[in-house]
Amino acid sequence: MHRVRVRIVEDVLDANDTIARANRDDFDANAVTVVNLMSAPGAGKTSLLERVLGGLDGVRAGVLEGDVQGSLDAERLATLHVPVTQIETGNGFGGECHLDANMVRLSLPQVPLEKLDLLVIENVGNLVCPAEFRVGEHHRVMVCSVAEGEDKPLKYPLMFRACELVLVNKIDLLPHLDYDLDKFLYNLDAVHPGVERLLVSAKTSEGVEAWRDWLTRVAAPEAVPA
Amino acid sequence: MHRVRVRIVEDVLDANDTIARANRDDFDANAVTVVNLMSAPGAGKTSLLERVLGGLDGVRAGVLEGDVQGSLDAERLATLHVPVTQIETGNGFGGECHLDANMVRLSLPQVPLEKLDLLVIENVGNLVCPAEFRVGEHHRVMVCSVAEGEDKPLKYPLMFRACELVLVNKIDLLPHLDYDLDKFLYNLDAVHPGVERLLVSAKTSEGVEAWRDWLTRVAAPEAVPA
Repeated sequence: MHRVRVRIVEDVLDANDTIARANRDDFDANAVTVVNLMSAPGAGKTSLLERVLGGLDGVRAGVLEGDVQGSLDAERLATLHVPVTQIETGNGFGGECHLDANMVRLSLPQVPLEKLDLLVIENVGNLVCPAEFRVGEHHRVMVCSVAEGEDKPLKYPLMFRACELVLVNKIDLLPHLDYDLDKFLYNLDAVHPGVERLLVSAKTSEGVEAWRDWLTRVAAPEAVPA
Repeated sequence: MHRVRVRIVEDVLDANDTIARANRDDFDANAVTVVNLMSAPGAGKTSLLERVLGGLDGVRAGVLEGDVQGSLDAERLATLHVPVTQIETGNGFGGECHLDANMVRLSLPQVPLEKLDLLVIENVGNLVCPAEFRVGEHHRVMVCSVAEGEDKPLKYPLMFRACELVLVNKIDLLPHLDYDLDKFLYNLDAVHPGVERLLVSAKTSEGVEAWRDWLTRVAAPEAVPA
């Protein structure tokens, strides 16, 4: 039974990769850099976007917002006057716990790609399946809140390995937690040696400038892969 | 394509329910109360079990520990001298983001049911799929950390509706967060009116006695459904 399941999963991932390549072609044709932003529920993806999307010098940014249900985050981001497109996986996609390439594909007609330099795809809050489904993105970034504990890289290694940047968020809480930051970074390096990381706080804005700089850098025209 | 997917999902859930009933029969035959404990990653499931499992008066407790990878939580709980059995979904189960009835079924030969009054099944950290897969449990409990924000019931309503008890954890952090507890409780009641909730802190032990009492109550022999 499990061998059958593994084969079905492999077929699904193959089909997903084919559609992801079509998405990527569309992004490249429009010279849009696409970032897939992932995290556990409540780690602070939306807050970290709120802090930077309004102030990206010369970068025209948009968001594709993934949720199981509702549009709370999309409404928050729309106040920044950036184009936001909502995908609800509970609406026609079986309530999936992640975005996949086909959901993104079906949403692209609503995304004004020709008017964007940067599209951030905010994935469903989940540390497992989003790491398995590429959606055509150029870059994968994850947010990990210090409130989640130091052991997360060891428990969800695929997610931490899939990303090229880890935003360690809510560092303003460090004085109030039994959290050993060095231990977290040791665990992070154990599963993804040397991966770029930024210590940030959406609340105090510490580290937010470095996050904004990172986005500006990847969104620069010369940074878009051919 | 999505209609096919929905049909496959329905078939999978039907098969899951059949196996869940077999698990439930085994639990009932051994007079073991089974609690399915769910949350987002890092909400504090293991810490809240550490606080109570050693001190359940007259209740012989065990744990079935679900993770994608590794046995860190099982090792923590084993120090309490309760029987702990590990399920790794990454080991033969395709790295699934949730436990299902079949994974539990295949693990039961390693669980000393005849020596237990209470079995806590600690699910994979995820607010989506664990709510869809019954594993034969009598009770479903979830942990929601205040660090995750007030909006979680609205974004993951199925999980909050599926549970009969919500443990609102890490309340020691409330003075350090922009978190409106009343708003969270309002959102909780919007998706699951009147659901039992306990405000707890695994760090300070506030509310932990009520959580211990709840477990002791459901594990009492007369509480096990026939």
